[in-house]
Amino acid sequence: MFKKYAPSFLSKFRGSMTSTTCRSESSFRRIADLKSDERNVSIKGWISALRKMKDNVFVDVIDGSSYQPLQVVLFKSDAPEALQYGCSVKVKGDLVKNKNSQIEMQNSELEVIGQCDLGEGFPFAPRKKYSMDYVRQFLHFRPRYSGFNSLFRLRNEATSGIHAFYKEKGYINVHTPILTSNDCEGAGEVFVVDKPPRRRGKNYTPEEPVRFFDDEAYLTVSGQLHLEVAARGLGQVYCFGPTFRAENSKSRLHLSEFYMLEAETTTLDSLEELTEAVQDLVHSVTNHLIHNCSEDLEICRKTMGDSNLSELVSNVEDMLAPFPTMTYDEAAQILLSNSDKLKTRFSVGENFTKEHELFLVRHNNNVPVFIVEWPRKIKPFYMKSMKEDSNKVLAFDLLCPNVGEVCGGSFREDDLDHLSEVLKKNRLSDKLDWYLELRKFGNVATCGYGLGFERYLQVLLQILNIKDVIPFPRWPHNCRL
Amino acid sequence: MFKKYAPSFLSKFRGSMTSTTCRSESSFRRIADLKSDERNVSIKGWISALRKMKDNVFVDVIDGSSYQPLQVVLFKSDAPEALQYGCSVKVKGDLVKNKNSQIEMQNSELEVIGQCDLGEGFPFAPRKKYSMDYVRQFLHFRPRYSGFNSLFRLRNEATSGIHAFYKEKGYINVHTPILTSNDCEGAGEVFVVDKPPRRRGKNYTPEEPVRFFDDEAYLTVSGQLHLEVAARGLGQVYCFGPTFRAENSKSRLHLSEFYMLEAETTTLDSLEELTEAVQDLVHSVTNHLIHNCSEDLEICRKTMGDSNLSELVSNVEDMLAPFPTMTYDEAAQILLSNSDKLKTRFSVGENFTKEHELFLVRHNNNVPVFIVEWPRKIKPFYMKSMKEDSNKVLAFDLLCPNVGEVCGGSFREDDLDHLSEVLKKNRLSDKLDWYLELRKFGNVATCGYGLGFERYLQVLLQILNIKDVIPFPRWPHNCRL
Repeated sequence: MFKKYAPSFLSKFRGSMTSTTCRSESSFRRIADLKSDERNVSIKGWISALRKMKDNVFVDVIDGSSYQPLQVVLFKSDAPEALQYGCSVKVKGDLVKNKNSQIEMQNSELEVIGQCDLGEGFPFAPRKKYSMDYVRQFLHFRPRYSGFNSLFRLRNEATSGIHAFYKEKGYINVHTPILTSNDCEGAGEVFVVDKPPRRRGKNYTPEEPVRFFDDEAYLTVSGQLHLEVAARGLGQVYCFGPTFRAENSKSRLHLSEFYMLEAETTTLDSLEELTEAVQDLVHSVTNHLIHNCSEDLEICRKTMGDSNLSELVSNVEDMLAPFPTMTYDEAAQILLSNSDKLKTRFSVGENFTKEHELFLVRHNNNVPVFIVEWPRKIKPFYMKSMKEDSNKVLAFDLLCPNVGEVCGGSFREDDLDHLSEVLKKNRLSDKLDWYLELRKFGNVATCGYGLGFERYLQVLLQILNIKDVIPFPRWPHNCRL
Repeated sequence: MFKKYAPSFLSKFRGSMTSTTCRSESSFRRIADLKSDERNVSIKGWISALRKMKDNVFVDVIDGSSYQPLQVVLFKSDAPEALQYGCSVKVKGDLVKNKNSQIEMQNSELEVIGQCDLGEGFPFAPRKKYSMDYVRQFLHFRPRYSGFNSLFRLRNEATSGIHAFYKEKGYINVHTPILTSNDCEGAGEVFVVDKPPRRRGKNYTPEEPVRFFDDEAYLTVSGQLHLEVAARGLGQVYCFGPTFRAENSKSRLHLSEFYMLEAETTTLDSLEELTEAVQDLVHSVTNHLIHNCSEDLEICRKTMGDSNLSELVSNVEDMLAPFPTMTYDEAAQILLSNSDKLKTRFSVGENFTKEHELFLVRHNNNVPVFIVEWPRKIKPFYMKSMKEDSNKVLAFDLLCPNVGEVCGGSFREDDLDHLSEVLKKNRLSDKLDWYLELRKFGNVATCGYGLGFERYLQVLLQILNIKDVIPFPRWPHNCRL
């Protein structure tokens, strides 16, 4: 029970500055932490498999802490009638190593705390593999589907790996806003946000609607401009969070809400250093996953991956190879001299289609490849011109198997006069006066990039549909749960 | 320059699985990493102070990696004319320990790369302290204001500390969605999201507008319901990200977009264990900050904090004291018997006002206090009834100096029949059928909490206005940048 509120008790403790208290620990343990030769251990979990033998029932229990279930051995007579696949249980018993060198629980007591009747509508049957399209219909049960259960742990570890990478390099994590009055790239595919229209009813007056914010407010498409603000005080910054596109695309590569990792820095001098930084990031996060959850990686690829894709990372280790670099002009030459193998025509000076991107990756033995030095007219306003050729910008795209572009970045235009002109031409001068002021007062050149987190996971896991690498996917006409 | 694209080069490297490449490192160093007795070191940064002596100019340079500037010593004759406070520079020289045991740069060369003319509108002058209201007008320059520069590093470290805490406990970080079709608490203060209305112009047809999503889509007010989904596959989960309220409040404690830390678990058994878990979290993150950035803590409190507040954490260490617990009924008694000291009347069964919350904290010597066992009728539908008294719920609020409620949590109703009734009464049955199904199939009891990250920082840093603890604040009529 609670300690009674007692100021005298408190005053005794004030000033002792203990950082831990000595209340009771929870009695429940997690499967990932279990060791053999312990007695009277309690866990909670769900039943992932059930085998009835002559005298015993063998019950596999999972609790989400590990891909590996705990085998619980029960006397047949001790097994509750309600015991079946999918139900939740409390179990207590002794841990021993069995003849397969795995920890199992013996002398077990088991209590069913939540039944799970397949006939009543639970969508998954034991030991059955389902299509991802089927599993995706049941977003609220998907965390209990084995491959997706692993995916949650992978996203968690990848997130850890990302923060660890930037911490080591001295980058500061900046919480850039979701709500913003600029749409960054000016591409127009933005969501707008407001308070709901007032409903007819009490206090209703049919007056002119008043906006919640004075400016039109959008959901962010990129944290870049805000990172540029922060970099001009902190030098090296990054953000990692959701971004939004109101594109009417139901393709296997698009979501309305997806995670983007963006970084901005004052410390790099050349496009070569920038692509090197991105390769470092990808190698580091991939290594982190290999070292911390290789089993979950394997389970994900096995249960959710599509190994029939014509372009794919055949081994996770392919993501640890050095990524070569080619210029836009070199890539264009490759596409032109292979035009007979392409369905969509390519013309120099245009952007690549998805087919072109995937062709270039295949041409590179399905190892990711950087394309650098892009034509100015197909890239956004903020990219910096090359000294050698003012029609080209200091930008790169990183193309990967399965999905094409995963990451893009550039140096940012830091010349005040040049940028003023560009903003005028794009009718952005009013909205982005503060962006110009960043160049006016104590300006430094910055560069940065944005990496699509879900697409990176798609590459690594050979997962065809981006909706299957995020817990709660949103796409046009779909915002379930 | 870039390596030329060469497939033969690539094939040599494939399979060697190197995780690092040997391209050149950036030549720029960061102030936080400097050691004495190194020659020819380059850094980039901004000038935070300037002192001209007889033969020398002493220039303080900051680069955001540390609260501590690097002192650069120049011969007067080598100082560029444009050199002044606020401009950005490249410096190169030798590092030595000076007579104050601080590292300084001697034999220095300095190049101004971005001028900063105070007369042209740069809002901060050297060595001047400004009111926070003034500083806040210049969101795009705020990262270069000393206290706020420290705040960025503090938020970064607090974020690290949060992830480290949950990693150690085995919690999985879940990316809950921003876009959702439920408004969780049913409180109604939600933002709605849609694609922008089509403008008159090409392709315009004045047809009935079609929604981007089929259901009405809101910005999330809490990730709780989604965490409940994830917890029923993973056991222990948390999320940390922005949440939104369309409240028309310009108070010093409200933002339209703020960061919330939420956790949900199947492993705890009692309200006592739950409040213990929250105390653990607060102690752990506070300890992390004390150990990793005590100087930034001090600078923030000095330059941005308001030590005149009547309720405040006088020492950061007060947040490491044990937090006592009192029941709602006990707290009510305290308020009733002190009614002569209160401006707003309190009646038993009602919610506390901000004044009541702060009174209870002051009554507790300005140490945070848990209030537990709340009346059902003033709390949301999903909270679980107490066995002993069905008019009370297993919920808590954590009240803190300066801001009042910082964290709230509860056990969630896990009884299918009872919850069905409550949802019917609240007209939520249709929308939350999936929430009921979580109870129907393999149900386990869960509990959890949400902690307001900005309010926690306000408590720790004695900062009066919540707009000063977040990089880009949003409040009614204000969504700048």
